[in-house]
Amino acid sequence: MSAGFAESLRGQASSGTPRQLHLNVNVNSSGRHPASWQVQPDPLGFLNPDYFEEIGRLAERGRLDAVFFSDGFDYGAPAVARPWQSLDPFIPLTAVARVTEHVGLVATVSSSFQHPYNIARVVASLDQISGGRAAWNVVATRSPQAAPLFGLDALAGHDDRYARAAEAVEVVLALWNSWDRDALIADRKSGKFADVDRIHPIAHRGEHFTVSGALNVPRSPQGRPVLLQAGGSAQGIALAARYADAVFSVAHTLEGAQEFYRDVKQQALAHGRRDDQVVILPGLFPILGSTEREARERKQWLDDVAGFDRELESLSTTLGLEPGDLHLDRQLPWDLLDRTTVNSSQGFAAAILDLARRDELTVRELLERNPNGHRSIVGTPEQVADSIEKWFVGRAADGFNLNVDFFPDGLAAIVDQLVPELQRRGIFRTEYSGTTLRSNLGLEEPS
Amino acid sequence: MSAGFAESLRGQASSGTPRQLHLNVNVNSSGRHPASWQVQPDPLGFLNPDYFEEIGRLAERGRLDAVFFSDGFDYGAPAVARPWQSLDPFIPLTAVARVTEHVGLVATVSSSFQHPYNIARVVASLDQISGGRAAWNVVATRSPQAAPLFGLDALAGHDDRYARAAEAVEVVLALWNSWDRDALIADRKSGKFADVDRIHPIAHRGEHFTVSGALNVPRSPQGRPVLLQAGGSAQGIALAARYADAVFSVAHTLEGAQEFYRDVKQQALAHGRRDDQVVILPGLFPILGSTEREARERKQWLDDVAGFDRELESLSTTLGLEPGDLHLDRQLPWDLLDRTTVNSSQGFAAAILDLARRDELTVRELLERNPNGHRSIVGTPEQVADSIEKWFVGRAADGFNLNVDFFPDGLAAIVDQLVPELQRRGIFRTEYSGTTLRSNLGLEEPS
Repeated sequence: MSAGFAESLRGQASSGTPRQLHLNVNVNSSGRHPASWQVQPDPLGFLNPDYFEEIGRLAERGRLDAVFFSDGFDYGAPAVARPWQSLDPFIPLTAVARVTEHVGLVATVSSSFQHPYNIARVVASLDQISGGRAAWNVVATRSPQAAPLFGLDALAGHDDRYARAAEAVEVVLALWNSWDRDALIADRKSGKFADVDRIHPIAHRGEHFTVSGALNVPRSPQGRPVLLQAGGSAQGIALAARYADAVFSVAHTLEGAQEFYRDVKQQALAHGRRDDQVVILPGLFPILGSTEREARERKQWLDDVAGFDRELESLSTTLGLEPGDLHLDRQLPWDLLDRTTVNSSQGFAAAILDLARRDELTVRELLERNPNGHRSIVGTPEQVADSIEKWFVGRAADGFNLNVDFFPDGLAAIVDQLVPELQRRGIFRTEYSGTTLRSNLGLEEPS
Repeated sequence: MSAGFAESLRGQASSGTPRQLHLNVNVNSSGRHPASWQVQPDPLGFLNPDYFEEIGRLAERGRLDAVFFSDGFDYGAPAVARPWQSLDPFIPLTAVARVTEHVGLVATVSSSFQHPYNIARVVASLDQISGGRAAWNVVATRSPQAAPLFGLDALAGHDDRYARAAEAVEVVLALWNSWDRDALIADRKSGKFADVDRIHPIAHRGEHFTVSGALNVPRSPQGRPVLLQAGGSAQGIALAARYADAVFSVAHTLEGAQEFYRDVKQQALAHGRRDDQVVILPGLFPILGSTEREARERKQWLDDVAGFDRELESLSTTLGLEPGDLHLDRQLPWDLLDRTTVNSSQGFAAAILDLARRDELTVRELLERNPNGHRSIVGTPEQVADSIEKWFVGRAADGFNLNVDFFPDGLAAIVDQLVPELQRRGIFRTEYSGTTLRSNLGLEEPS
């Protein structure tokens, strides 16, 4: 696609500023590819702050919007087969905050197993020390291993978990809003430290939470921390459209992504929001090479290191099956799947099933397309940029949540090869325009 | 007291290593004196990571055992009169961890309002990224403002809160112990990442918590993070004697401190523990000057800046009274106090009442002695060192939890004037002997 044609499609001439792409990097410990830790210099990097700081610096060098830490309560699924998000995300995020100045800091926290007061406080704390770069990615935990850690025999049902998530979001937003901007006076001469009339205790009484009081952290440097949402179910979309500043989604086809995009934006409009104030970021997993052949060889190398055994296990977990239910050279067991209710991540499971059914894939073919993760493209920076631009211009995405084959190498390839190509096409910033995550994402400060 | 005499008393000739003092610094935002923020360069330092990093570096320069962050849920008591522990403690502690190599990192977390699984995880995370320097200071929250934030009309009673704290400690210790040292294999060649047989899920079923599973953070670099306890009630002492590696206490008299010391050590022995494996650290608040007169002038200057009004308010809160119940030039209202049940920090309240009754102090005299905090000494480094040595040798303390009049100046005085005096007397380290908090405190690694 020529740059001129793309520009005409890209539009927003009225505002004078061409629409710009947003890019996050998903810091999922060693990387998205199952072989990632086996090809890293240090397979224990997932416990090392130096490792995360290097990732943060790289992301900032690439002018990315944010680093995103996912989270979970399991110690690897299934059972410690590879590195996982072991550290509480706020620990590495604070380390990253201290060695960067612009890149956003997204922490995933479960609304099922943390109290909204504690969530509001810890995110606001990260926000304060980073000058307004923090975000909360709200998840209604889907990992069944989490339940017994918190005294439950099983997770609540999908709808219940989302109802609780929605209420937690309401409480957290209200707490973030409980301080006026000028509540802290800190006048050393008069000894007047704060104006209590500018602190507004909330009084929330709901089905899951009763919270009366104000936050103990002053107002955010970015008005309030950014709210992200990652669920793809109907309830997840409804939550996102109503409250979220940005949405992480799973999408394997342009048409599916466009439909999701329209759906969220229209629901946002129905809530009286501006449709550019909810930023849609499908996952994307590029494997880059300077030629297409080099990229394919990189993927083949990683696939060979990993083998398919553990992936088979992981796929079966996602689909609510036993590993023995899957055979590499057959299609998915459709009869079995039709009888299974998937109470895990509906977004992931649905995307996988759609893909496998549409293309009549064997399990092996499906695994080669990385179905446990996000849409994958194996190719040159130009090829990946073509797809990004097509989705961006075609209103299937406002940007992407990028997955990396293995850290830090795969991120360095994105920063040094893919980002310059996107910048050449005029769809990605060459410098940060502000210092907050809100400014990176083009979001307005809430009043 | 001569150094030779002190050494003979100090004892432990059998081990060959003379008993050494332990010193923490309590990082209570701007400092212990109410005027602290009014004499700081930046009264908003309590929100600034640079500020905390400077404190951490200073503490390490002074070879202190640890920096200690207290915590609470209120936004200043009473009502935002001065800076407070606003940030979630793990955020500044992570920043400190990244600019230091030896100093311990103590985080206070409420057992009333955080789930033990989350506590175990976040402390273990700080421990991992600091190479084994983290501690949890368990508190059964006493601030009545916390209750409505978590859906309660009032805090649970003192005994109930301590029963919950004890159970939370059991769960956290069990989770910290759920990984064997060699559970992570991370063999890149074979693709074997972990040995699940060396991960031991716990199955705790108690009155307050049911927790089944393992932690998602591997074993601590120091065996397990250090456990501290800060309550002075009978239940607090029992909890400390049974589980704690170190105890923060409040003590205003040598005799009272000796009694507490004997009590905890004897109870620890009764639990089959070695009495040198629970380190007793009373609070101490030195205000230093190169002459006694200079120290007194420093205190007078700070008192003049602060005035007594806000202190009166704070004292009345501690004692469960209204500010109007107190008059500067009269004694405490003993008749009223006899009718009041103090469901706050019994350790603090009891110490204040003892002091005021013993010395028949007016409220003004009591406030001049800093009753809202810990034992205060205004004097030269030699005078403060004399008192420290007397308490240390006299088995009233294994060390002290130092309070600072205002940061960073007051801490610099401790590091540059008091610490060298203690080192000259041979009772405080001149270099760190190890890299973990456990080694700083002379604690053995748990098996």
